[in-house]
Amino acid sequence: MARVNARYDFMSDNTAPAAPEAMQAVLDANRGFVPSYGDDPVTARAGDLVRGWLDVDADVRFVASGTAANALCLAALCRPFESVLAHAHAHLTVDETGAPGFFGHGLGIVALPGASGRLDGQALAEALARPQNGHVQSPAALSLTNATEYGAVYSAEAIGALIAPAKAKGYGVHLDGARLANAAAAGFDLKAIKGLGVDLLVVGGTKAGMPPSEAVVIFDRAIARRFDARLKQAGQLPSKGRFYAAPFIGMLQDGALLRHAAHANAMAKKLAALTPFPARHPVEANGLFVEMDEPTLKRLHDSGWFAYRFLDGTVRFMCSWATTAESVEALGEALKSIA
Amino acid sequence: MARVNARYDFMSDNTAPAAPEAMQAVLDANRGFVPSYGDDPVTARAGDLVRGWLDVDADVRFVASGTAANALCLAALCRPFESVLAHAHAHLTVDETGAPGFFGHGLGIVALPGASGRLDGQALAEALARPQNGHVQSPAALSLTNATEYGAVYSAEAIGALIAPAKAKGYGVHLDGARLANAAAAGFDLKAIKGLGVDLLVVGGTKAGMPPSEAVVIFDRAIARRFDARLKQAGQLPSKGRFYAAPFIGMLQDGALLRHAAHANAMAKKLAALTPFPARHPVEANGLFVEMDEPTLKRLHDSGWFAYRFLDGTVRFMCSWATTAESVEALGEALKSIA
Amino acid sequence: MARVNARYDFMSDNTAPAAPEAMQAVLDANRGFVPSYGDDPVTARAGDLVRGWLDVDADVRFVASGTAANALCLAALCRPFESVLAHAHAHLTVDETGAPGFFGHGLGIVALPGASGRLDGQALAEALARPQNGHVQSPAALSLTNATEYGAVYSAEAIGALIAPAKAKGYGVHLDGARLANAAAAGFDLKAIKGLGVDLLVVGGTKAGMPPSEAVVIFDRAIARRFDARLKQAGQLPSKGRFYAAPFIGMLQDGALLRHAAHANAMAKKLAALTPFPARHPVEANGLFVEMDEPTLKRLHDSGWFAYRFLDGTVRFMCSWATTAESVEALGEALKSIA
Amino acid sequence: MARVNARYDFMSDNTAPAAPEAMQAVLDANRGFVPSYGDDPVTARAGDLVRGWLDVDADVRFVASGTAANALCLAALCRPFESVLAHAHAHLTVDETGAPGFFGHGLGIVALPGASGRLDGQALAEALARPQNGHVQSPAALSLTNATEYGAVYSAEAIGALIAPAKAKGYGVHLDGARLANAAAAGFDLKAIKGLGVDLLVVGGTKAGMPPSEAVVIFDRAIARRFDARLKQAGQLPSKGRFYAAPFIGMLQDGALLRHAAHANAMAKKLAALTPFPARHPVEANGLFVEMDEPTLKRLHDSGWFAYRFLDGTVRFMCSWATTAESVEALGEALKSIA
Repeated sequence: MARVNARYDFMSDNTAPAAPEAMQAVLDANRGFVPSYGDDPVTARAGDLVRGWLDVDADVRFVASGTAANALCLAALCRPFESVLAHAHAHLTVDETGAPGFFGHGLGIVALPGASGRLDGQALAEALARPQNGHVQSPAALSLTNATEYGAVYSAEAIGALIAPAKAKGYGVHLDGARLANAAAAGFDLKAIKGLGVDLLVVGGTKAGMPPSEAVVIFDRAIARRFDARLKQAGQLPSKGRFYAAPFIGMLQDGALLRHAAHANAMAKKLAALTPFPARHPVEANGLFVEMDEPTLKRLHDSGWFAYRFLDGTVRFMCSWATTAESVEALGEALKSIA
Repeated sequence: MARVNARYDFMSDNTAPAAPEAMQAVLDANRGFVPSYGDDPVTARAGDLVRGWLDVDADVRFVASGTAANALCLAALCRPFESVLAHAHAHLTVDETGAPGFFGHGLGIVALPGASGRLDGQALAEALARPQNGHVQSPAALSLTNATEYGAVYSAEAIGALIAPAKAKGYGVHLDGARLANAAAAGFDLKAIKGLGVDLLVVGGTKAGMPPSEAVVIFDRAIARRFDARLKQAGQLPSKGRFYAAPFIGMLQDGALLRHAAHANAMAKKLAALTPFPARHPVEANGLFVEMDEPTLKRLHDSGWFAYRFLDGTVRFMCSWATTAESVEALGEALKSIA
Repeated sequence: MARVNARYDFMSDNTAPAAPEAMQAVLDANRGFVPSYGDDPVTARAGDLVRGWLDVDADVRFVASGTAANALCLAALCRPFESVLAHAHAHLTVDETGAPGFFGHGLGIVALPGASGRLDGQALAEALARPQNGHVQSPAALSLTNATEYGAVYSAEAIGALIAPAKAKGYGVHLDGARLANAAAAGFDLKAIKGLGVDLLVVGGTKAGMPPSEAVVIFDRAIARRFDARLKQAGQLPSKGRFYAAPFIGMLQDGALLRHAAHANAMAKKLAALTPFPARHPVEANGLFVEMDEPTLKRLHDSGWFAYRFLDGTVRFMCSWATTAESVEALGEALKSIA
Repeated sequence: MARVNARYDFMSDNTAPAAPEAMQAVLDANRGFVPSYGDDPVTARAGDLVRGWLDVDADVRFVASGTAANALCLAALCRPFESVLAHAHAHLTVDETGAPGFFGHGLGIVALPGASGRLDGQALAEALARPQNGHVQSPAALSLTNATEYGAVYSAEAIGALIAPAKAKGYGVHLDGARLANAAAAGFDLKAIKGLGVDLLVVGGTKAGMPPSEAVVIFDRAIARRFDARLKQAGQLPSKGRFYAAPFIGMLQDGALLRHAAHANAMAKKLAALTPFPARHPVEANGLFVEMDEPTLKRLHDSGWFAYRFLDGTVRFMCSWATTAESVEALGEALKSIA
């Protein structure tokens, strides 16, 4: 349970409230009677805005859960006796309680290495070259995350170089964009996605400053067939769809999404400049990962600032649209005092 | 896609916007940084309010999807080679795209009859008495819905009489309360639930006038163990939990939930009094089901009013917190003109 | 538990021992060291014999369980949010403990009517014409059984007439041939199957007089991809594959399979001629289904003869390769004495 | 496909034919009509023999597949959002195409280290001590294998020392006894199992020289409830059950099982004494694992002897009941010639 007076600003980018643009759009959408299950004008407009943002002609759905969205995408690309190639520290590999195997009826994940959450090309090549037989779950899909779990950002070229050999084997491609806005704000070219071979993309709204919402973008029209049934069965076809679509309207119609992401990224850089602890990953998006021993982390917690130790041993500080320069400075002071 | 100028007021109780009390609570909760995944003060307070509303000491979780909530409850009560006894026209039997089988890994549903969506006691007794063997999915749980899909309301005694023989066999009990507020407004005694043997209850927020939210109430403490892992894996442990908890605060703290439900029920009764078509089910909650032939329904649709033909052949009109007396009267006129 | 001196001859066609031709082939195959998992000469030869029997060029696998074979075929044709159109009394609908939903992760079965286990064409047409939406499990496959559960036999033309409209919708087709040999012995043209649009066929060995073995015939090469992984994951890729392949050699190499099936069919006809109880289904394969009230059935059981009351209320007597004319006559006498 | 004149004697212990005692018992059982699905005297007697062999009062089932048997046991012990603690190189971890996740609806495996396939106690303790939360699949069961995948044998004390801390946490215990006979022949005390806290044991028949058959021993009576339905749904309740029970009669009634296992173990020791390649694991059961570089392995294959390189890089030679001293000597010569 949350402690009194403790500060959760940097604990994650999902501890922040929703941004005013997103909330206003929800309030605007909350008028009159509209058809349910996404067959409403709010959802239609939000879909258009997502398509415009990415410059694509693709189906778009708005769902409540990024975990479910990722898992359903993998289930659409892999059969239970197949596997997904993904980073060993990807959110879906380690932080979703086995959701891919649940939604995918036992599908496997082949965990691959790579610095700062970016998949290592050589390791991917080796995984793709592995002999296949009936006794192992051979790969059927590649999953990438941009920005990565460790605050690094792939360029479109880097993603393309990873996707190409997977596509050459006929495999599907999923892109987890829980922090796609942060990647875009850091220079990732959103409009390049359509040429990269991505079949299914999840655009994160929640961590980007929306009330809970994620957009699933379906590039492959064959996968889109009966996708609503897939979502409904899995509890991801909201009856009051406008509540998940509206935040995307508020954040996309005037550029708030990228503007807020750029702010979050800038706050992470500012914090990196203030901390006396060495950064262990490039600060390209909205996270800072530092080296810190356990007694020091305890002192930080005791001083009221929450932060998690991550899977690679670093301590993580996440910034969001709501992070203020003042709180960065206050945390910077706290870090100096415990160093 | 929604048509211009068409009216969706009575298409379902999920076509309405969210009530102001719920939205205000969301806005109030949208302040500052709080821990994610339900470990926040908003979620704590909402849980207390639900417990108080039901006068129970039970675990409460807030989730995005009623379909998922129901299915996860059934999965908690039944193993894949077992089945749930439920009404043949229950939402989870016919309207959730097989979600119970998906979340429950193939668990079966034994569809039972009963007038106006209320389970027939004799049919239940026969199902419970059926010989069991390894070749069929024997029952492990009973699922009831109050108010029913056909706008009828069980009394606590009626529910108790159905639950008792299931409990005597050691089976679990799930109560789908998607319209529990309507049932309560119609006289169902909420505080009797705790004595009835219900293991898992889903309290509907969405159809009751909230933005998407449902409360799962876990009466059985053994089931509560690792329930967060169950929810997370299934995409139903929201990171920004306050958005699903806050609406319950807004609707419960001053009685809005029951007040709105009573209004919806009253609107259904008013409509029943105005329509020239014979009602085929008791109008106890917020729905009216009438006999209407296909050409007449088409004329209704052509006049701009949407309504569904239901599984039993009746045409359904649903009222909600947002239904106005004026729209009821306007629909009444339209019905007279096409009769 | 089996009673002393009770007679199980007609209880099912799986109460019989295995035929000598099948057992001899197992003994013949049980020599020397061979590669496991089906990569052995016994399996290769058995596959050739099955292909020759059906006059097809298709992949063949030998598995232990007909229940698993059927369920895996359905899982190959349907996704979890889709359904299979099948007879309401088909084995996979009512007698496999929900195996299709287990192997198919919640896939649904749309149960259709039809006299004597043959699917009614009009009911199928209506099911195919039903409007599709995201709230129901729309069909993706048709499953037929020949001979049917009630001892009737489809002609190739009759099967073709049912398959054509399903194929026209792009759906897959599964044929449960647990008693295919009996159908063939009754005149069904095996070599017509290849032209009918069947994607997956299960040829029953067990009920036809083999030790446990079923052959899965994969007509659609796209489905064949990674089928061994599908089987292995599901526990149906036997390490000592020759034990499941050899029986098919023994039964196919000199025509024993059809010869035995013809005998079983003849025994059913003989029994039909002797029984004083009216037959309720055509006696075309190896089963006889008669009208018999409960006290009479009890007298039959008390006299030592076991028989099941079936789902449609009739009492079933199954014949097999091992049924003797003497036992048919003895049962005939018993039936007369209790009539 | 198998090559002409190649030798598969040491490729695995499932390349051997079935032992004469097992085959004779099948022939003996193949008489008359008996009830199906395990309700027959053959199955009853085989169950008694297994109970006697282990000196336990437990339910016993005979199934076709060890993969399915293991996976169903894990599914009985773990829910989908939980995990099994198992050796990183256990058969179920790496060699069953993800069967545990398929039968267990996404349940996870926590892969632990340990020399020669024996679980490291310290690693287990650390896994048991790991903090639990809703974002990871926390353990609910421990799975051990005896003899291990690398031919090592646990003593009863060693197993007990691993089970105790898992039981202290309330977790279930599965013992994979695919080579339990080899372990017993090496000194493992079978009659100690009943005191160790094992909930579910799979006794391997196939690798021990039977035609395909595995015995599932259910020590926990609560788990035994509706176990036949669990098996049937999963395709592991054979209709002609006697074919899976009889081999256990043949192998247990006069001690053939242990006698053959002792022979296999002795052959492995004999081979170890002959090979010029260093053994990398203790030769306690029926396998020999040696260090051999890739060109040398290729020379071995070219000389007609098949052997697999295993997950830890060693090359594996498996002996069975059918391995002859002559073939061991011939292989020993071949190994010397390529060294």
